[in-house]
Amino acid sequence: MKAAGAQIILANTYHLIIQPGPEAVARLGGLHAMMAWDGPLLTDSGGFQIFSLGHGSVAEEIKGNRGAERPRTLIGIDEQGATFRSYLDGAIHTLTPEGSIQAQRQLGADIILVLDECTPYHVDRDYTARSMALSHRWATRSVAEFSRARHGSAGPQALYGIVQGGVYDDLRRQSAQFALDQPTFGHAVGGCLGGSPDEMYDVVAMAMAPLDDDRPVHLLGIGGIQDIWENVAKGIDTFDCVSPTRIARHGGALIRPALSGRARDHINLRNARFRDDQDPLDPECGCYSCAKFTRAYLHHLLKAGEILALQLLTIHNIAFMSRLMNAVREAIRHDDFAAQRQHWLG
Amino acid sequence: MKAAGAQIILANTYHLIIQPGPEAVARLGGLHAMMAWDGPLLTDSGGFQIFSLGHGSVAEEIKGNRGAERPRTLIGIDEQGATFRSYLDGAIHTLTPEGSIQAQRQLGADIILVLDECTPYHVDRDYTARSMALSHRWATRSVAEFSRARHGSAGPQALYGIVQGGVYDDLRRQSAQFALDQPTFGHAVGGCLGGSPDEMYDVVAMAMAPLDDDRPVHLLGIGGIQDIWENVAKGIDTFDCVSPTRIARHGGALIRPALSGRARDHINLRNARFRDDQDPLDPECGCYSCAKFTRAYLHHLLKAGEILALQLLTIHNIAFMSRLMNAVREAIRHDDFAAQRQHWLG
Repeated sequence: MKAAGAQIILANTYHLIIQPGPEAVARLGGLHAMMAWDGPLLTDSGGFQIFSLGHGSVAEEIKGNRGAERPRTLIGIDEQGATFRSYLDGAIHTLTPEGSIQAQRQLGADIILVLDECTPYHVDRDYTARSMALSHRWATRSVAEFSRARHGSAGPQALYGIVQGGVYDDLRRQSAQFALDQPTFGHAVGGCLGGSPDEMYDVVAMAMAPLDDDRPVHLLGIGGIQDIWENVAKGIDTFDCVSPTRIARHGGALIRPALSGRARDHINLRNARFRDDQDPLDPECGCYSCAKFTRAYLHHLLKAGEILALQLLTIHNIAFMSRLMNAVREAIRHDDFAAQRQHWLG
Repeated sequence: MKAAGAQIILANTYHLIIQPGPEAVARLGGLHAMMAWDGPLLTDSGGFQIFSLGHGSVAEEIKGNRGAERPRTLIGIDEQGATFRSYLDGAIHTLTPEGSIQAQRQLGADIILVLDECTPYHVDRDYTARSMALSHRWATRSVAEFSRARHGSAGPQALYGIVQGGVYDDLRRQSAQFALDQPTFGHAVGGCLGGSPDEMYDVVAMAMAPLDDDRPVHLLGIGGIQDIWENVAKGIDTFDCVSPTRIARHGGALIRPALSGRARDHINLRNARFRDDQDPLDPECGCYSCAKFTRAYLHHLLKAGEILALQLLTIHNIAFMSRLMNAVREAIRHDDFAAQRQHWLG
């Protein structure tokens, strides 16, 4: 990750609660020590996966897609917290705002998040308003628990609040105002972002409008190339997303969409047209994978089922995202944002 | 591989014939260029897998184990060569001695092998004698084809002959004498090595007795820690084996058997006893994986199904084998072989 230019890593509290457990991570000295990462580290609250896996498809819902069927593991949500069943051993867990902060304290990341309810796409305004109010009460409890001890297993921590309110302008403003009033280090924009990219950019703009410039703003779960340019234009500072590494594990190498000629954000190396292609994965990239290997070799490794392919593609996709974020920073620094966005997106 | 101390790599002609094909590798500049390996490289003849996959279980037969059931893909062996069906697309291939050399010329390794028939464990002396005679005729044809052009797709190549003769002393001596008379760069010991480690060491001694000291001798398909010490004692110079990387992919880290306290050659990191173990994989190792990570982390990665675990264990196991072979060389250099063998094996 470091060689590929990554400056910060996110770890999933939900998955780490289920295994090996926050106590086990704390016994190993916290996440930094456990995985030998001495850079900044962020954990989410654990809520996203509870609701995502719980409803069966919230991850897709948040981006406006419905349909994917998964086993439902969410048992219930009440004032106290969310109760769910472990997908590993069926054990029942209840995650409360206090419990989430305590777990994240044991995990020991530098940046941690308040617990919120992730509302799915198909719920109505009434549900969204009630859910937002619940998330605000949970945020207040998260802040109180955080204030008890601002140190995790590996040192001092900073807390981010989360702006909710779904796709509704007045609710987003109300939630952003609530977040503003909290003594947090930063803000995150969460919850339903609508059913299309354009709606997402509108929702982010609604959430950003009341926020101050003094605190960093993170956009949860978004990481598409166009989405990054558009949301930075709305004021977002940081992103997290599984897609670069997931695309890699499915045989895809990220490329600049304008370069692809088809506004595509990646090429699929499984495609037969790469069988004899002696170009690097991405002619603009200097990462280990691009410096050493051809598309034809990656195509062969994928066809042969060699896990080396997944590793090399992951290295490239992380290096690509690092280069993209560097380009975004440079564009801001040189007041050249529109031209650079055009250069990347075509 | 280089960082882990590997000095030479073996590539499988059989698998490369099936995909992507030797012509495709040649178009990419040969194996060295294709996989960006600028060190020495060895290919086998392709025969081992034809007979192994063909009979269903020759790999196990050669080591004296019977039983594993696999689809049989060997269609027939005759004077001309071996005919088999691709496990990928059902296409029929015939591998002749000339075809094997031509394929290995296209692959472009530095060291290549003559085609032989790998006789399984359960065949009798008559079959072994007839098979040996066939392998000798195939070796003569391989040498003739090799002499036509000693250059592969990536430069000059050196040819190894193979000593056959199964577990029969007179046949092994006869085959070693045949190998001695061939103008090859080196010798390999192949075919059935008996049903137990002790029988293997006896068979290797039979094959070695007539051989000259001027040419390197390779033992095909063997790579256990004890097997290496015992066979080096019989005069073997080099080995190849999938076991270090296969053990890694099954969650195992190689350790010095004397250190394990139980004469085991590896520990299985899936075992619950490593859950809180903060030692490195191997306290004697300085490889990347051992320098950075604990057994507890590897245990967690394996339980979570993270392919990073397989990568880290592979790095360690390759580094371990490099350290083992270095210890063997140092023991010979310092005339300290018996003591070092004892130190490693207990």
